[in-house]
Amino acid sequence: MNAQVINCRAAVLWSPGTPLTIENITVDPPQEGEVRVRMVSAGLCASDGHLVWGWDTDLILDLEGNPIVMGHEGAGVVESVGPGVTSVAPGDHVIPMWMPECEKCDLCSHPKTNLCLSGDIVSAMYHKNKETRMKINGKPLLSKAGTGTFSEYSVIRETHVAKINPSADLKTVCIIGCAVGGGYGSAVNIARVHPGAKCAVWGLGAVGLSALLGCKQSGAHTIIGIDINADKESVAKEFGCNEFIIPKTLDEPIESYLQKMGGIDYAFDCIGNQQVLDSAYKSLTPWGVLTVLGLGPRGNGVNAKVADLVMGRTVTGGLFGNQKPRKTNQEMVDKYLSGSLPIDGLITHRIRLDEINEGFDNLKAGKTVRTVIEF
Amino acid sequence: MNAQVINCRAAVLWSPGTPLTIENITVDPPQEGEVRVRMVSAGLCASDGHLVWGWDTDLILDLEGNPIVMGHEGAGVVESVGPGVTSVAPGDHVIPMWMPECEKCDLCSHPKTNLCLSGDIVSAMYHKNKETRMKINGKPLLSKAGTGTFSEYSVIRETHVAKINPSADLKTVCIIGCAVGGGYGSAVNIARVHPGAKCAVWGLGAVGLSALLGCKQSGAHTIIGIDINADKESVAKEFGCNEFIIPKTLDEPIESYLQKMGGIDYAFDCIGNQQVLDSAYKSLTPWGVLTVLGLGPRGNGVNAKVADLVMGRTVTGGLFGNQKPRKTNQEMVDKYLSGSLPIDGLITHRIRLDEINEGFDNLKAGKTVRTVIEF
Repeated sequence: MNAQVINCRAAVLWSPGTPLTIENITVDPPQEGEVRVRMVSAGLCASDGHLVWGWDTDLILDLEGNPIVMGHEGAGVVESVGPGVTSVAPGDHVIPMWMPECEKCDLCSHPKTNLCLSGDIVSAMYHKNKETRMKINGKPLLSKAGTGTFSEYSVIRETHVAKINPSADLKTVCIIGCAVGGGYGSAVNIARVHPGAKCAVWGLGAVGLSALLGCKQSGAHTIIGIDINADKESVAKEFGCNEFIIPKTLDEPIESYLQKMGGIDYAFDCIGNQQVLDSAYKSLTPWGVLTVLGLGPRGNGVNAKVADLVMGRTVTGGLFGNQKPRKTNQEMVDKYLSGSLPIDGLITHRIRLDEINEGFDNLKAGKTVRTVIEF
Repeated sequence: MNAQVINCRAAVLWSPGTPLTIENITVDPPQEGEVRVRMVSAGLCASDGHLVWGWDTDLILDLEGNPIVMGHEGAGVVESVGPGVTSVAPGDHVIPMWMPECEKCDLCSHPKTNLCLSGDIVSAMYHKNKETRMKINGKPLLSKAGTGTFSEYSVIRETHVAKINPSADLKTVCIIGCAVGGGYGSAVNIARVHPGAKCAVWGLGAVGLSALLGCKQSGAHTIIGIDINADKESVAKEFGCNEFIIPKTLDEPIESYLQKMGGIDYAFDCIGNQQVLDSAYKSLTPWGVLTVLGLGPRGNGVNAKVADLVMGRTVTGGLFGNQKPRKTNQEMVDKYLSGSLPIDGLITHRIRLDEINEGFDNLKAGKTVRTVIEF
């Protein structure tokens, strides 16, 4: 408990829509219920990108004029812990969780949700009493989702870390904490793909490819990957896709093409723009399930007609596959170690922290699947 | 197989939006794969009412200028069978099924739907080659959903009848074939209500009350019944409702009231009008499920926002609780016989065939739950 203030480097967003800057920051010792983590790796997710690029999505983060350390996907080693912390100790390997799990509230024991009453992405930007443990030139520095993984060190609530098997390579399993857990879980836990099913996934980033993998491991028969970028075909096939489609190369709307195949039992929207939502919905079989994971422009939605719903269609979605985050991270790491969760191919680029803006540029351009920062 | 043409009485709709007339009709012998049933009872369902009243809903029935014997809920005794019929024999007790189950097609073995490729409600109005077995003055007489239960005798495909335990009172179990199977199934099989859940059901006819019963038997903690008619309170409480609400008596929108209670885990729309759909959707918890059963005016829908879906909301629906109809009818009859499906209270009125128009008038006015014709 003799932890001192740490000086380190972090990628800081001063204002939405501007590039990140690499800054020297201070990271205070963890206080009660908090953990200081030395970050080993961090993944670049489009929902961080949205803020960097200045996009207006449904995920509202009012920074109140403060700078913020971005990053909600990562893996690291516990450097020190504050009073009262029992689930992790210095030296433990952890995955930060952008969804908290206090294991005490009514929702943590609720069978149907993985939300937690201890807080959300917005409130988690601050620690208790609107304090921040990270500072820049003595001024408050917020932490994205309470995890702030784009920093060499980050103070994270105990509710926001999952202790994982120390045998796992921290430079790879970081992507379980968002992309893999969310995408894979959407197939196996939200949609609950049945053996022999026909599936289609729109948007083949790390989330979409993880959804493909979930479809494959659920025993789906037909797995269609849909993207605007031809470069995604080979990785899509690696992750289970047996037909890759670029919609603009068809001579009809993608939904017509898919309906001629008999329709899609499980459609996954990993994009969130209105055109994809509409196409995915119109591609469904009468008993089809549309699972929405993508956060596109604010206000988008699915207009589900009564005539469709009464035939058996379902429209649904969820954060992190609607799975309890701690146990899911732990189990998926174990699954990765056993060889039954082959996710190495999702990481197409490994960069240093000071290459982060180029990483986000490449993500925006569709040139990467997952880019991982190695600290 | 020496069956002859039968002369009997039936309630005939000559044109949508006009009263039914009681007519003397002929019922031909059953042909291959067909069964002639002596009807013992038939229930008055609002989806028959929609056609009688001339409402324009999503259930499109183009009668092509022909008169039709209405009725899709009933129970009876097999009078004779055509060649090739193996699942029932003369004397067997049956519930006609308005959803067929051929037990041979790809959908009948599909784990996620109860649709059947042998036909639908529209095609079933005719027998093979657009023939009809019922005639009036020698002219074709269609059969609603292939069941035409508002007739003393009806020829029904073998795919459309469920043989049931002969101990069950045919004058009561008729309502299992639509109202009870659909309403109860929506709670236990579509929504899959979890123990301790908060449920709300809009529209307390026989379908809505059956949904309440399904919620109760699933172990729901809070079961809210919502109707515009104060007379429904006592029967709602009999079927498991522990709070009865007439929305116009609140000093705020029902969705605000329900959100102040923490929101609804499972909402059921057994009405189908746009205002109810909107209220039910807005009443959900972030992980709530809206199950749509009601067929209101054509074109209605639920505008499910991405921001809501990604938190975990689900919008869904289904016909007959998305359950395979034959087995479900059989099992529910057995459950009724064992005393664990107490549905007697749903039948509030018993009438003769020639009182059928008054029965539909009372249904439209909300004065009845289920009215059953006794032949």
